[in-house]
Amino acid sequence: VTRYGTTWRDGASRAFRLDGDDAALLPAADVGELLANPDLLHLPGDRIPVPAADTLAPPVLKPGKFVCVGLNYREHVTELGKAVPEYPTLFAKFATALIGAREPIAMPAPDVTAKVDWEAELVIVIGRRVHRADLATARAAIFGYTAMNDVSMRDWQRRTEEWLQGKNFDRSTPVGPWVVTADELDPAAGLAVQTRIGERIVQLGRTDDLIFGPAQLVAYISTVMTLEPGDLIATGTPAGVGVSRTPPEFLQAGDELITSVEGIGELRNRCEPERAAA
Amino acid sequence: VTRYGTTWRDGASRAFRLDGDDAALLPAADVGELLANPDLLHLPGDRIPVPAADTLAPPVLKPGKFVCVGLNYREHVTELGKAVPEYPTLFAKFATALIGAREPIAMPAPDVTAKVDWEAELVIVIGRRVHRADLATARAAIFGYTAMNDVSMRDWQRRTEEWLQGKNFDRSTPVGPWVVTADELDPAAGLAVQTRIGERIVQLGRTDDLIFGPAQLVAYISTVMTLEPGDLIATGTPAGVGVSRTPPEFLQAGDELITSVEGIGELRNRCEPERAAA
Repeated sequence: VTRYGTTWRDGASRAFRLDGDDAALLPAADVGELLANPDLLHLPGDRIPVPAADTLAPPVLKPGKFVCVGLNYREHVTELGKAVPEYPTLFAKFATALIGAREPIAMPAPDVTAKVDWEAELVIVIGRRVHRADLATARAAIFGYTAMNDVSMRDWQRRTEEWLQGKNFDRSTPVGPWVVTADELDPAAGLAVQTRIGERIVQLGRTDDLIFGPAQLVAYISTVMTLEPGDLIATGTPAGVGVSRTPPEFLQAGDELITSVEGIGELRNRCEPERAAA
Repeated sequence: VTRYGTTWRDGASRAFRLDGDDAALLPAADVGELLANPDLLHLPGDRIPVPAADTLAPPVLKPGKFVCVGLNYREHVTELGKAVPEYPTLFAKFATALIGAREPIAMPAPDVTAKVDWEAELVIVIGRRVHRADLATARAAIFGYTAMNDVSMRDWQRRTEEWLQGKNFDRSTPVGPWVVTADELDPAAGLAVQTRIGERIVQLGRTDDLIFGPAQLVAYISTVMTLEPGDLIATGTPAGVGVSRTPPEFLQAGDELITSVEGIGELRNRCEPERAAA
């Protein structure tokens, strides 16, 4: 099993590789810098204990692109009352939204939004520059996968036709805990993608329900734009989001949001009033 | 008049300041790096002739965020048959789409898209970090303005609910020619925003027709996300886009797209088949 992550050490970020029972600290600020300089991936590095979960940063701190896919699980499309789409729906996430595997989610005051919802997702990490890739080239461009929760302010998401403003609140989006290389995971086999609030499971889907699989997404997006090492593609969320429940349900300050993707790991993020989370 | 730009020299990008009849070459790779290190803005620098237009790069090569606003001129909203919006519509542009003031626009082959449309825009350049800014703080965070043409593949834009994929084709979006500081320009006074194709004027609006002005946009967006030095906000396009004409009209390889914003300058970009433009 090969895993790469980013850890906060003495106020700066550093990339690491998990090697069995310990880890190697690598000479890069994050996994994005490793992927831009792939010789660094295999350096011996300095031996360190496995970084504690509460030191983990988002694996890529400032992705050149973070493309998010909407409406990509059959069950989720059904719960929203929509038809199975012909094309992937794409929107963007900015770096200011990202937090690590144990960092608190910044909950705005209720007069800003009281409709904070969850969306567990499998995330593709790009390892090679590709443009107009066929499926085989697209598959080879996938370095690995990580997990995220695309926490969404539903009122802001639906203020206009475009979702971006509901998807980009500061420090709202946990990503990690690390990147698992593509040879270790097969999304087509059906990895469990889960959100819990405390002990309660609210989302549980499997990646074999994806409408557009990882290689298809990379090929499709690369028709539009050149994908580069360190770019991220979030593949969409399964059924069970709060806004589709009866009655609708949203995150509250104090909740612990637990996000997991099978074979990758778990994010555990406490919802805290935004001043405390800053 | 104070203007800052980015020029290609010997294969690398460098920031410069226009000083009367010549220019100062500054120790930064682009205007984004100057804004992140504002002491550099006022260095004497090395005297050089004013960089030729065909050496100009996008002023900020890799903005941390490029937020685009849709549906923000009353006349344009009317031509699209929509109501005046209550909130700004926001979407994103990635750095792979950006080109300089004379660089060719990459036209995909007709089987990828034949609906390449124009959108001249005034662009805000952020100079200070702001979050939840009031109008006065938002105004003070605006370092200056530049121009762009948000060239849009209308078929891809309308494939799904989200516009991103029609707005992010590689090398589709001219930005520049440089950044004019905010003290030199008053968008509320009504700057002319124009697109020509060759000699023919196809768009001509004025920034006093903006629904949400620059300070309002900065304040609104900063409610969601922290804006940082070098971030860009495109303020939307006036009436006259090709898709709203009778019959609809689109750009063709060989066309010269000329974009101007009064008080800033002009972009002149030839539409070339994408292989030639790469």
